[in-house]
Amino acid sequence: MNSKFAVVGRRVPLIDARDKVTGATSYVTDLYLPGMLHGRILGSPHPHAKIMKIDTSAAEKLDGVKGVLTYRNVPAVAYDPCLTPPPFVGAGITQEFVKDRRILDSEVRFVGDPVAAVAAVEEHIAERALALIDVQYEELTAVFDPEQAMNSKLCVIHSHATDNVASDVSYEIGDTRKAFEQADHIFEHKYKTAGQQHCSMEPHACVCKYASSGRLTVWASSQSMFFLRERLSEAIGIPTDKIRVIQPHIGGGFGGKLDLMLEPVCALLAKKTGRPVKIVNTRSEEFTSTTRRAPASIELATAVSKEGLLLARTAKVLLNSGGYASHSPAVVGYMGWVFGSLYKTPNLKYEGYAVYTNSVPGGSMRGFGNPDIQFAVESQIDEISEELQIDPMDLRLRNIVESGYKNPLTGLPIESCGLRDCIERGAESIGWRRRHKLSTETSGATTRRGIGMACVTHNTSARCALPDFSSAFVRVNEDGTVNVLSGCIDLGQGSSTVIAQIVAEEIGVDVGKVIFAESDTSTCPMDTGTYASRVTYVGGNAARLGAHDAREQLLRRAGEMLKSDPSTLEASQGKIYIKRKPENAVSIQEVVRFSQYGKDPAAILGRGTFSPQGNAPSFGAQFAEVEVDVETGKLTILRIVAAHDVGRAINPMAIEGQVEGAVQQGCGYATTEQFIEDNGRILNDGFVDYKTFCAPDMPEVSTIIVESDEPTGPYGAKGVAEQVMAGIAPAIANAIYNALGVRIRELPLSPEKILKSMRRASH
Amino acid sequence: MNSKFAVVGRRVPLIDARDKVTGATSYVTDLYLPGMLHGRILGSPHPHAKIMKIDTSAAEKLDGVKGVLTYRNVPAVAYDPCLTPPPFVGAGITQEFVKDRRILDSEVRFVGDPVAAVAAVEEHIAERALALIDVQYEELTAVFDPEQAMNSKLCVIHSHATDNVASDVSYEIGDTRKAFEQADHIFEHKYKTAGQQHCSMEPHACVCKYASSGRLTVWASSQSMFFLRERLSEAIGIPTDKIRVIQPHIGGGFGGKLDLMLEPVCALLAKKTGRPVKIVNTRSEEFTSTTRRAPASIELATAVSKEGLLLARTAKVLLNSGGYASHSPAVVGYMGWVFGSLYKTPNLKYEGYAVYTNSVPGGSMRGFGNPDIQFAVESQIDEISEELQIDPMDLRLRNIVESGYKNPLTGLPIESCGLRDCIERGAESIGWRRRHKLSTETSGATTRRGIGMACVTHNTSARCALPDFSSAFVRVNEDGTVNVLSGCIDLGQGSSTVIAQIVAEEIGVDVGKVIFAESDTSTCPMDTGTYASRVTYVGGNAARLGAHDAREQLLRRAGEMLKSDPSTLEASQGKIYIKRKPENAVSIQEVVRFSQYGKDPAAILGRGTFSPQGNAPSFGAQFAEVEVDVETGKLTILRIVAAHDVGRAINPMAIEGQVEGAVQQGCGYATTEQFIEDNGRILNDGFVDYKTFCAPDMPEVSTIIVESDEPTGPYGAKGVAEQVMAGIAPAIANAIYNALGVRIRELPLSPEKILKSMRRASH
Repeated sequence: MNSKFAVVGRRVPLIDARDKVTGATSYVTDLYLPGMLHGRILGSPHPHAKIMKIDTSAAEKLDGVKGVLTYRNVPAVAYDPCLTPPPFVGAGITQEFVKDRRILDSEVRFVGDPVAAVAAVEEHIAERALALIDVQYEELTAVFDPEQAMNSKLCVIHSHATDNVASDVSYEIGDTRKAFEQADHIFEHKYKTAGQQHCSMEPHACVCKYASSGRLTVWASSQSMFFLRERLSEAIGIPTDKIRVIQPHIGGGFGGKLDLMLEPVCALLAKKTGRPVKIVNTRSEEFTSTTRRAPASIELATAVSKEGLLLARTAKVLLNSGGYASHSPAVVGYMGWVFGSLYKTPNLKYEGYAVYTNSVPGGSMRGFGNPDIQFAVESQIDEISEELQIDPMDLRLRNIVESGYKNPLTGLPIESCGLRDCIERGAESIGWRRRHKLSTETSGATTRRGIGMACVTHNTSARCALPDFSSAFVRVNEDGTVNVLSGCIDLGQGSSTVIAQIVAEEIGVDVGKVIFAESDTSTCPMDTGTYASRVTYVGGNAARLGAHDAREQLLRRAGEMLKSDPSTLEASQGKIYIKRKPENAVSIQEVVRFSQYGKDPAAILGRGTFSPQGNAPSFGAQFAEVEVDVETGKLTILRIVAAHDVGRAINPMAIEGQVEGAVQQGCGYATTEQFIEDNGRILNDGFVDYKTFCAPDMPEVSTIIVESDEPTGPYGAKGVAEQVMAGIAPAIANAIYNALGVRIRELPLSPEKILKSMRRASH
Repeated sequence: MNSKFAVVGRRVPLIDARDKVTGATSYVTDLYLPGMLHGRILGSPHPHAKIMKIDTSAAEKLDGVKGVLTYRNVPAVAYDPCLTPPPFVGAGITQEFVKDRRILDSEVRFVGDPVAAVAAVEEHIAERALALIDVQYEELTAVFDPEQAMNSKLCVIHSHATDNVASDVSYEIGDTRKAFEQADHIFEHKYKTAGQQHCSMEPHACVCKYASSGRLTVWASSQSMFFLRERLSEAIGIPTDKIRVIQPHIGGGFGGKLDLMLEPVCALLAKKTGRPVKIVNTRSEEFTSTTRRAPASIELATAVSKEGLLLARTAKVLLNSGGYASHSPAVVGYMGWVFGSLYKTPNLKYEGYAVYTNSVPGGSMRGFGNPDIQFAVESQIDEISEELQIDPMDLRLRNIVESGYKNPLTGLPIESCGLRDCIERGAESIGWRRRHKLSTETSGATTRRGIGMACVTHNTSARCALPDFSSAFVRVNEDGTVNVLSGCIDLGQGSSTVIAQIVAEEIGVDVGKVIFAESDTSTCPMDTGTYASRVTYVGGNAARLGAHDAREQLLRRAGEMLKSDPSTLEASQGKIYIKRKPENAVSIQEVVRFSQYGKDPAAILGRGTFSPQGNAPSFGAQFAEVEVDVETGKLTILRIVAAHDVGRAINPMAIEGQVEGAVQQGCGYATTEQFIEDNGRILNDGFVDYKTFCAPDMPEVSTIIVESDEPTGPYGAKGVAEQVMAGIAPAIANAIYNALGVRIRELPLSPEKILKSMRRASH
């Protein structure tokens, strides 16, 4: 904690925690409107097929059914479902969003692809009606592997992409071919990652209601209310000014709520029936019909000098985009940014392909490709160290970027970089020096221990590719409270608490005095959405500017009351006083009342808008200590040390919460989570068969916060939301190597793979 | 319509009309929350009594009853229920707000005064429980006449006022005694007015819900959400920052929803039961347990020169404040302002008394005492004309105030005054010249016709006595819509439509593009409330400033796009263009997108706050043509001509709506509405016995709009809400005199009084 601040740096419990743990928080699913119907969606049983005939008459006749939709009675518009701003044209890394999605289509492209929808007075009636819909399909050739898909002549998933490439992205910096020719050492490896579900506690849900004026209100669980409005407008063909989006509390997003999903069908059912309609996904549908972290295969080639300096690096990434593009084009683009942004490398080449297959669509998920590319990069760094007999930490320290380094992709210099500190303090905490002796010293009869590490970086904001800004209104009230209208959406990660701290610090009140308005497009000023680890940095800056504006008004009024120049005043703890004579004080309540009810009455209204000029990357180093049972392959993650440069810790406790959550999700990604598929059908579509990390599985987690004081951040802060995910899998893979001497290049790091690798190594 | 404006001056249908007439609008009564209880309140059967014993045990035992409140288990705080800002200290006319109200008290002061409250799972159970509450009263001497109350030794209604005077107000300008001594003519008359109920279509209603965090949300039907929050906080003793007030649509207020009413009991029942509670008044309770326009008795003395110039005027007003002060102190103060503000009179003296009685409390109602004082003043002007043989119109024209005249009470000059125009155009329309021959020419066998007139003035804003300001946020969206966050509350009078027109005019878009946020203390910036005919003037100015701020941002961005200086640009019809080359245009959508998604992204966020420096009075002249059946006394109002100086007609259709509504309420006030009481009990507590003007009763209404272009108003506008009420009763009384030659000085002008007066005159 930095003692120069009153609220910033304090361990403030999340402001919405109490209502959440007592069950008082209302989510979309808790909303019941008079006359409301329940919608259910029929998913395709085939991975790839044409609908030849669809007969809904039996379903329509079922008592209680009020409306049925198929591709024949919905708009046929192709739209892009991504809830993000339009990408920059000509940005450093070109990204495209692909308009390949339809509300309901006559062709289905994955098992679970929506085919029809029903609204009925009860959910079980809607469910029964789905079974009464008679669909005759002509099955088409399906393909599930991106490499096969790129070369398939028999299977074209979208007519606009005959090679099944939804999007490709590439860049070259320097001359990689020449550098490889001249290098002392060349390393070539291929890595594979697995699909991962977001597993938000709250599934996708929405309620739609039309007013008689034709205005549509949508209660949604999404990460960007403004772009939900925009995309929904495009999909259903009504202007955005006829759509109001209200965002109740959200039970987790993790990128999964960054696509237009249930909303178009729900809106059209509401329109057709003239009644409000609610649709809530089942857990199974969360697995089969939403999006996931797309599996990737990553080929790396790295040229290294004998001193261990990275001379040239190339990467080729195939991303399994599944049946629709969703965010995959952007993910594969962002992986290229991460690839080029952590280590100083004069020659870089990147090729990425988002490839259509007949799997569940790949979307946005915490890290946005970073965990995948970093699993490859940070595994390979250890492979290189091993080969060159350089300590992996040393090899990293020789190559990492640092403050002042100009990112070759954005051309922007890094303002703040605490990566070296992260590595050194993390190494100290995990006991890096034990590394060489660990496999012998701590071994049991059948167990071996190991330590591994990985470095990470992540954008704070989407500024390198997308327009990025946030705005806030800040009103100071006659009771000393502060109302904040911010377009930022707190998915549970605690951004509202952090923004409340920033506002409280700026105005000089307790954090409990800051009250947020419900997220609502008709009241909150514009923010682009909750993604890209941007909320504290971009939304926090906007709120700070809004609060600063209000503070200036308060100081001017207090100056009138205290007959002093505003520059001689200070605000803290709900009071404004003369700096040199602190006993000459007025309370903020008195100042607002003076302003509102005295001469020349006026409200205290602040306004802030912020757009980042750079992307203020955060950095981190992750360390893992693991124990492997050599007889069963059972892997126990004993400890994770997560050292992260967050610029400034506005709320250390919230950062620890973020880190612990990311460790939970990262350990699952690294070791247990995957989609088991049979001809496109997901076999493990529930928490019994899809294994996430639960409380008893969790390792000890040590969070080390490094503060590098980002000059462009609010009170020096940068983001921390996503990067923690990225270092866990490679740190564990490297720890397994340290324990067993075997290298596993495919996720998840399951007991089967560990045993298989050990057997292969012993041959 | 002024052709220099695109939207201002147009006949725009009210933006919420369609939803209202189709029944889609939600009011507080339409709100159902899970687990919600229904509250009912027990009113006193006695006009004045002490509660000796109160036994709620039988009620508490009734199945379904969840909580019962009496004076013994509610906070005993005395509070002021008026939802207005604290009055200026030392304002021209001193006003006090009296803290004489308690949530539930051990003494009751009128029939209907709340004694106990019950919350139950169904409304009929709560109703049954009320009957099971055993209350033993000791009856106290009751008094119903203010004059008696001031002299009563036996009945003291509040211990802080042993003479039963809740508040008195007086002023003298010049030397009235001397002026009377020197005058050619002196006139002395006494007038009496009757109580009137607001009769809002929507009765008082509220829903209260506590969050587990202790935060209270109140859905209220009130005219000032911010002061509802403030007064509720004082009454129930929780800080305002723990209270959020949401105002759904409101089905009429007319001043009746300007008191804290059901909310404290509702909040305490919600607190006690841990469940949301709804209370909705029955129509009967609207009559017996809310407030009303307080009956007044008014003694006037006027000294006139032989040329018909008013030399000196005195007034003494007794207002029947009923059991509690409510707004009566302010009403009796405001009557003093009106008394001194319409006619140039060098010597003025005013004495007003708000007097406690055991009747239903007098509160705020459309006109706020203006109809009462004007009934007296404008009746007397005709009596003087008759005596001096001067045409009543001429007498008025000789004495009326005019532009530039300095109001003796506020010291402020009148900026705009179209009163002369109103009189002349109204007289032309009604056919004033027919007046002398009318009673003979148009007489039937038993009917006589007559024409009468009256002048009026009314504050626009409460600036003379209260702090007055409004503020607004205006956001322009990427779809060309404009969101307005205003603290103003539209009670149905159409203020949102007018503000939408102002914003649309300023930004250069269609009025349909302007979207209002729901009134909510946690999102809307501060406004003091809907009263004092202030919303168009004060709220409209704030919104205009906010829109102007947004417009400047738009022009700056458009200037970047069009490579032109912003000062060379114009905005209209959703486009911004170069004035000299209108074909060089960009749409507002393009400008917002450029601003949000181009270089240096920013939202377009406007902010406005306005505080009037004067009270910008409106003026008007009302004319009535009536027909009286001399055998039955039956009065038919044939036609009302209402000529009003509104500064600028932002929406002529909305003004006509206001005028027609006021004529309906004014005709009822003038001729049919009154409280029939028996020992404090109201005998006509419903629409069967309490006669309001209905559609078949309505006269032809001709509205004449005079535009004087108020320099401080938004596009020159002033208010029109209340003054129309004030001229109707005297115009009708004067028309009756014109028809029959009889003068009735007491309202309502019923057939009985007409017959009685005719009989008296013929003797």
